[in-house]
Amino acid sequence: MATPEYEAVPEIAAKATPGRAGTVVMKFGGTSVAGVERLRAVARRIVAARESGNRVVAVLSAMGDMTDEWVRLAHEMSPHPRPREVDMLISVGERISCSLCAIAIHDLGHEAISLTGSQAGIVTDTAHGKAMIVDIRARRIHEALDAEKIVLVAGFQGVSTDYDITTLGRGGSDTTAVALAAALGAEACEIYTDVDGVQTADPRVVPKARKLHAISYEEMLELAAGGAKVLQLRSVELARGHDVKLHVRSSFSDADGTWIREEDERMLEKALISGVTHTIEERVYRVDDISVARLFEVLAEAGVNVDTVVQTGDEIVFSAADAEGAEADAALETLGVPWSVREDLGKVSIVGAGMRSHPGVAAKAFATLEELGIEPQIVTTSPIKIACFVPRGEVERAVQALHSAFELDTERAERQHA
Amino acid sequence: MATPEYEAVPEIAAKATPGRAGTVVMKFGGTSVAGVERLRAVARRIVAARESGNRVVAVLSAMGDMTDEWVRLAHEMSPHPRPREVDMLISVGERISCSLCAIAIHDLGHEAISLTGSQAGIVTDTAHGKAMIVDIRARRIHEALDAEKIVLVAGFQGVSTDYDITTLGRGGSDTTAVALAAALGAEACEIYTDVDGVQTADPRVVPKARKLHAISYEEMLELAAGGAKVLQLRSVELARGHDVKLHVRSSFSDADGTWIREEDERMLEKALISGVTHTIEERVYRVDDISVARLFEVLAEAGVNVDTVVQTGDEIVFSAADAEGAEADAALETLGVPWSVREDLGKVSIVGAGMRSHPGVAAKAFATLEELGIEPQIVTTSPIKIACFVPRGEVERAVQALHSAFELDTERAERQHA
Repeated sequence: MATPEYEAVPEIAAKATPGRAGTVVMKFGGTSVAGVERLRAVARRIVAARESGNRVVAVLSAMGDMTDEWVRLAHEMSPHPRPREVDMLISVGERISCSLCAIAIHDLGHEAISLTGSQAGIVTDTAHGKAMIVDIRARRIHEALDAEKIVLVAGFQGVSTDYDITTLGRGGSDTTAVALAAALGAEACEIYTDVDGVQTADPRVVPKARKLHAISYEEMLELAAGGAKVLQLRSVELARGHDVKLHVRSSFSDADGTWIREEDERMLEKALISGVTHTIEERVYRVDDISVARLFEVLAEAGVNVDTVVQTGDEIVFSAADAEGAEADAALETLGVPWSVREDLGKVSIVGAGMRSHPGVAAKAFATLEELGIEPQIVTTSPIKIACFVPRGEVERAVQALHSAFELDTERAERQHA
Repeated sequence: MATPEYEAVPEIAAKATPGRAGTVVMKFGGTSVAGVERLRAVARRIVAARESGNRVVAVLSAMGDMTDEWVRLAHEMSPHPRPREVDMLISVGERISCSLCAIAIHDLGHEAISLTGSQAGIVTDTAHGKAMIVDIRARRIHEALDAEKIVLVAGFQGVSTDYDITTLGRGGSDTTAVALAAALGAEACEIYTDVDGVQTADPRVVPKARKLHAISYEEMLELAAGGAKVLQLRSVELARGHDVKLHVRSSFSDADGTWIREEDERMLEKALISGVTHTIEERVYRVDDISVARLFEVLAEAGVNVDTVVQTGDEIVFSAADAEGAEADAALETLGVPWSVREDLGKVSIVGAGMRSHPGVAAKAFATLEELGIEPQIVTTSPIKIACFVPRGEVERAVQALHSAFELDTERAERQHA
C-alpha cells in the first residue's frame, strides 16, 4: 500500500501557554454544511464548544456538491483545464461555507472570523490539485484565538510557495483539520460527518455492524486501506505522525463517536478484531518476467497507487483502484511483458491490533470462508490485518460471516474498546 | 453632487519601456460573462486583442446575478451580516469568472493566468463593502505580461491593509479596470457592456437616441449624475484624475462604442449638447431654519449622497437618491427643524461641453419645456449642464422634446464628435 508521505507540519504546540484553555479543532464535511439550516446547526454546535470553554478552530468543507459543480463547469470550458486554474476555481466553495458560518455565529451573538487557507497560513508545495502542506504559519489564527474569537478556516486549500491558491486533493479538509490540530497543539481534532463513527463493518452489508468506541491509528489505516471510507488515509497518517487524537462523530447527534489515537493497553484486552472491511473497487493484475523495482517505478510514474502485492517466482500480483485502471493498463502496456487483469474479485479485510498476540485469528478467518465454500484467491497480511480477494459475488456473504465469527455482532465487541 | 474622493493609484506608467507593445485593459461586466458560452465569447475577444499585438489585462465581473445570490444567502443567515464576512463571500464570483475564462483561453491555445484582486496587488483601505484603492502593487501583473501571458484580474475586490479581502462597492469592477489602466499606463481602458456605448438619451424613452462617438470626462460625469447608468461616477472620476481613456462598447459586436477622454477642440465645434438624461429615482427635500454646513454634516454622517442643492433665504432644497431616502429621513428627523419631502418629481438634465460658449442653450431648453406646458420646479446648472425637476409624469415628454430641440435625433449630432 503506497501511503502518502508525511507532511511537514511544524509543531508549535510547545508554545502553548500552560493553563490556557484547551484548543479544539472541529471539521465539518460537505453534507454537514449543505444548506442554510445545516450551516446554522453547525454554527450552534461550534458556539456550544466555545461556551464550554474551548478555544475553537473549525474547518469547513464546501456545501454539498458545490465543488463537483465547479469542476463540471471547468470541464465544460475545456476538456483539460489546467490544475492552477481549477484550484483557483474550486477553492471558493470552502470560503463560502466559512463566511456564511461566521455570519451565523455573529447572529448567535458570538465573535468569529473566517480565514482562507492562505490567511490561515497553510503553505503548500506547488502540486496543484494534490498539494502537500509544507508549513503552517498560524499567526492570524493565534491572534484571533487570543482575541477570544472562533476561527473558521476554509478547508482543502492553501497557498503555494509561488503564492498561488492550491488544493490538497480528495479528503483535503480532513488534512487541513489534522494539520492545524498538530500546529496548534489542539487537544483533539473532531471530524464531524454523516455517520456515527467508525463501524465494525459497512452497515449496508452487515446490519448488525456496531460503532467502535476507540481504535488505534494503525487499525484505522488498515480499515481505510481495506475500504472504510469515513476518513482518508492521508489524514490518518498525518494524525499518527503528529500524535493528534481524532474523534470521528456525527454532525446530527451529540453522541460520542469513535476515537482514533495511540494504541493503549485497553485496546488489547481481548484477541478480537476491530472490524471487517471490504471493497469491490479494485482490480487484480498479474505481470510476468519483470523485476518488482522496474514495475513499481513505471506504476509510480503513471501515478498509480498500488495496494496488495504478492510475488511468487517470476510472477507479480498486485491490486489497484478501479479509478486508476486506465493509467495502470497504459503503464503495463509500455513494459512489453505478458500481463493480465481480473475485475471479478473483491477484497475482504479483517483488522485488529489484538491479532498480534493471538495467532488463531488467521486460522479462524479461513475456516469461516471454507465453511461458506469460498476460496480466497490472494492473501496478504500485516501484523494487524488479514486480507484476501474473493469472487465479487461472494464478498457480502464473506463479510457477514466474518463479522459474526469474530463476535462483532454483539455488544462485547464494543466493550473491549471502552 | 457629492463626488467620491480620488483614489490614490500610483502611476507607474513611467516605467513602460518605449517601443514595447501597448497595454490594453478590457473590462467585461456581469451580463458579458453570464454562462459558459458568453465566457467563451469573451475569451475569443480577449485572444483577438492579444493576437493584434497588445499586452492584455482583462478585468471580469461575476457571472450574471451570482453576487446578488450570495448577498441573499448572507441575509438569510443574519439580518445584519458583518461587512468583512460579506466581502469574503461575495468576492468569490469574480474569481470564478476569471478562472473559467483562463481555462477557455488555454483551450484556444493561448497563455493566460487568473489573479485575485489581492494577487493583482490591489491594496485598499479597510472600509469593507465600499473600499477605496490606496495602492497598486502590480509586480505579478508585470511578470505575467512580460512572460507573454494574458492576465485576468478579478474585479470589484482587493486586499486591505489588514490583509482582509475587501470589495469596492457598486460598479467596483469598472474601478478596478480604470485603476489598473492608470497603474499600467495602458493606452485605453475598454469597458465592455450590454449596450453599444453612451447614448444621447435613454433609448427606451427616446427611440431616436443615438450612440455618441466621443465625450469628455466632465460630460460623462454630468450624464452619470443625471441618470445615465452605463458607467459609475466613481470610475469616470478616477479615469479623469489619471487621464485614462475610456472606451465604452458592446460585448456582442465589433463596432466602435463611445470614447470618453480629455475634451478636445473637435468636441466643441458646434454649440450642441451631448445628451439628455433623466432619473425618476430621486426625491426632493425642503428644510427650513438650518445652516447648510450643519445640514450637510448630518447628511454626510448618515452616508447620504446629496445631489442638486438650492438655497433661497432660510430654505434649503436638495435631492437624494430614493435608495438613501430612509437614511435621509432619519437624519433630518434628528435636526428638530421643519422639513418635507416630495417623491412626485423627476430630474431632466441636458449636458454638453459646447454650452459653455453658447449662452442660448438654457433659453432654448426652457422655451421647449414651456411649449409643452411643463413648469420646471428646481433648476440647477453647471458650466456644461442644465438640470431641472419636473413632475414625474412629464419626464418622458420633456426628454423627448429636448432631444429633438437640440437636434440629437439626427446624424448631425454624431458628426460633431467624430
